[in-house]
Amino acid sequence: MHIELKRGSSTKLYMQIALTIADRIRSGLIEPGTRLPSVRKMTADLGVSLVTVTKAYAELEAIQLVRCSQGKGCYVRGTEPSDQMSREAAAHSKMSTSDSGVSLNWQMTLVDYLPRAQLWRHFDASPQVRYELHMSAIQPELLPTRDIINSAYHLSSDHAERMAAYGSFQGDWELRQTFATHFASRGLQVTPERMLITSGAQQGIDLVARTFIGPGDVVYMEAPTYTGAIDVFTSRGAKIITVPMDNEGMRIDLLTRLCDTYPPKLIYTIPTYHNPTGVTMSTQRRAQLLNIAQSYHCLILEDDPFADLYFREPPPASIKSMDSAGHVVYIKSFSKVLSPGCRVACAIADGSVLTRLVAAKSTADLGSPLLTQKALQAYIQEQYDTYVHQLREELYSRLCVASEVLEQYATNEMQWRLPEGGLNLWLELQGNMDMHELHRQSLAAGVSFLPGSACYVAESDTTSLRICFTVTSSEALKQGLRILCTVIERVSSQQAGATADRLPLI
Amino acid sequence: MHIELKRGSSTKLYMQIALTIADRIRSGLIEPGTRLPSVRKMTADLGVSLVTVTKAYAELEAIQLVRCSQGKGCYVRGTEPSDQMSREAAAHSKMSTSDSGVSLNWQMTLVDYLPRAQLWRHFDASPQVRYELHMSAIQPELLPTRDIINSAYHLSSDHAERMAAYGSFQGDWELRQTFATHFASRGLQVTPERMLITSGAQQGIDLVARTFIGPGDVVYMEAPTYTGAIDVFTSRGAKIITVPMDNEGMRIDLLTRLCDTYPPKLIYTIPTYHNPTGVTMSTQRRAQLLNIAQSYHCLILEDDPFADLYFREPPPASIKSMDSAGHVVYIKSFSKVLSPGCRVACAIADGSVLTRLVAAKSTADLGSPLLTQKALQAYIQEQYDTYVHQLREELYSRLCVASEVLEQYATNEMQWRLPEGGLNLWLELQGNMDMHELHRQSLAAGVSFLPGSACYVAESDTTSLRICFTVTSSEALKQGLRILCTVIERVSSQQAGATADRLPLI
Repeated sequence: MHIELKRGSSTKLYMQIALTIADRIRSGLIEPGTRLPSVRKMTADLGVSLVTVTKAYAELEAIQLVRCSQGKGCYVRGTEPSDQMSREAAAHSKMSTSDSGVSLNWQMTLVDYLPRAQLWRHFDASPQVRYELHMSAIQPELLPTRDIINSAYHLSSDHAERMAAYGSFQGDWELRQTFATHFASRGLQVTPERMLITSGAQQGIDLVARTFIGPGDVVYMEAPTYTGAIDVFTSRGAKIITVPMDNEGMRIDLLTRLCDTYPPKLIYTIPTYHNPTGVTMSTQRRAQLLNIAQSYHCLILEDDPFADLYFREPPPASIKSMDSAGHVVYIKSFSKVLSPGCRVACAIADGSVLTRLVAAKSTADLGSPLLTQKALQAYIQEQYDTYVHQLREELYSRLCVASEVLEQYATNEMQWRLPEGGLNLWLELQGNMDMHELHRQSLAAGVSFLPGSACYVAESDTTSLRICFTVTSSEALKQGLRILCTVIERVSSQQAGATADRLPLI
Repeated sequence: MHIELKRGSSTKLYMQIALTIADRIRSGLIEPGTRLPSVRKMTADLGVSLVTVTKAYAELEAIQLVRCSQGKGCYVRGTEPSDQMSREAAAHSKMSTSDSGVSLNWQMTLVDYLPRAQLWRHFDASPQVRYELHMSAIQPELLPTRDIINSAYHLSSDHAERMAAYGSFQGDWELRQTFATHFASRGLQVTPERMLITSGAQQGIDLVARTFIGPGDVVYMEAPTYTGAIDVFTSRGAKIITVPMDNEGMRIDLLTRLCDTYPPKLIYTIPTYHNPTGVTMSTQRRAQLLNIAQSYHCLILEDDPFADLYFREPPPASIKSMDSAGHVVYIKSFSKVLSPGCRVACAIADGSVLTRLVAAKSTADLGSPLLTQKALQAYIQEQYDTYVHQLREELYSRLCVASEVLEQYATNEMQWRLPEGGLNLWLELQGNMDMHELHRQSLAAGVSFLPGSACYVAESDTTSLRICFTVTSSEALKQGLRILCTVIERVSSQQAGATADRLPLI
């Protein structure tokens, strides 16, 4: 197991070890039932003291991820049958012998560089889930899939030979021209030369990270933030510093102070209808953020999947539209709004930052498929604006449904704030809700949500959760939310009861 | 500029610095005309002595990549107007100011982690090239693009809603079932659970590297080998050790001895119709290679794009088909043989090696696009075997054309060996051919080839080159090869003349 130890860090070595192993267990990368390396072996592998490893294992035992016993060693604990992880564990254990029955246990010694993969863990819902509210997406019936397929067909069969070739690493020229027109109508003047087509925003984030972020580089993110981005920056060994948010987005005052001590290499932000909270960063803060980037000669990674999905008024101008000195890499995904199955996003960057991203793209996959690029090009040119206008109204009606259900059924513990756009609703629960138990009971009752902890770097004990109000039908949304409210009430009262039980009986 | 220095390595520090900078200059990542950081700054940044940096810069000057002058510093040299790099340089210099005319020079201080991107440099040919023999691909007219587009259309419009969703990270289940049947008919028994769909073989190699290879990990490769794989392992900071080849492929006797000193973490091989040499590894060596992997508990990455493209007899069984203990990650690309534009390949792995690759795929891009997967699925199911049967005959006829031209026009310097399958022909030139000059004159005469140096890790002064005999029409292949022979003769005689000139005139 590779653990990147940062000596001289404010996090003690034993905690670094414990946190890394915890991330791997929670991500399902170490299976339940697995025996951790002995304290002695770990000591030798990492070049730390016996005490450090012993404390790390004790920490893991304290947070109930492993069970240690004298002489037998420490084993990763199992999970409830209803849990996603245990389904993975079942799949793993099938895999621990090969088809021919030979043991694959030697693979446990194979060091890897995957410290965390939370996105993977939280992507699929359990089979018993009838109301999938955990995934941030648009109900497939609302997406123009048939039209996109038709466009792809006509455009590509007219130019079959061209489709056969490798495309440009940077992405199809005509698609980039189409995007230029698209962005111009939204206040962002950009030429096709400044764009790179990526396989979804996820790949865009990953390319920026693999190009510019290495061990110890300082990356700032909002807390909470997008799970998949945390996975990416963690995998590069970044020193991630999170900045709390308020109603205007990232707390720039706090960021400024933090930067004094830890100068940034990159600031990752989702300024518009932020995932998961739905908050939009004010124009003033956007300008301040850009100022900071200019002062520190650092990059801003502006992740913008939702800008077109406003309910009343268009959002503030993008940070990229104010950027004259090439500090912002802007990533606009068309996956969510048009077609998750096409995996097309556009990254906009300047100067050698762009050049270097194109080089990274060539190493990563030689460029995105032409077929899907062509499919979106024709559609965006001709039909996108009409489509997205209707879509906005439909999404807003879903938000109203969610709001009504919550007004009627929410318990006192629940707090929320309706977003001005996007797909997500962030619920904060007051008191000491046992989120693990809530998640378990909710899944058992057929409703999935994204536990807030997946949106924090350190998996803190947050009592928040994200639901998506656009991924199911209105009817399913109503049902699912009502059930969720009931489960929250039940878990809350069980906890209160449990607490009461422990009071002295006098 | 981030330079990963390996203290205690057999390569001296100043050479490590020089090689890294050289790679970046050759890859176009540092533009012609750029001033390198001052010796003093570099000394401080890297924590090495002034002498070390001075020697590194002197080395770069000796190999004519930079020009240093007292008091002014060292500048990256420009290149001929006919050169690919200078077109990039032109694009770069346009980019060194933003659209609004603001300087982007601050970006030069932005450290990145991209040590090499040769693939990117050698991908596109210059505009004056009429005979593109540098790229390993099949002439678009021979590919079944129209049929694939039709399949995609019918299959996807029948299931439009499904196409709208995110697919599985691991790849479409039905495509994996189709692949299982496909591989079974080729002696490789594998279930869909053991597969991961990737965006081309390039992404497969990259996922294996990012998951299992980190700084200093020992990776063995054939010398020469696939440029894109060198880029990937270099970018991970691997300690790459190359093993010479003979007529039976990688010299396992040498590999065995090297492994005694440097135990392998991964062995990368293209055993069948090797790229670039065309050599096929014998069955005995395949078995020996697997034995080594078992002894050292390491991985073999078996890259197999060409197995279906044999000319007379099918190639030996894949190493994966002998692998019972999960040591081999097998990557089969369908890009070359069916559709470079679709970017679909299949990785086969076992146990937690597979699980970890799936996790890496989720972080990299959330899974490949469904549309392109569906497109290939229907085609492979119904038409692939008939298609590939005809294709083999056509490709063989191209090889015969190339062989005839070479027999007739080759100069005494040229040596080659006809491959039993695949797309590539490797030419070795005897004597001290100036390959840079040959490449320049060949491009000027309208013929591109891949300089052999791109296929070596250390960019050694090899006098070999790769041409692809399947990427153009037969007629263009004839013309191009004839011109190439003429250019080789001319450069050779110019050099002989130049040498003669330098002889004492007595």
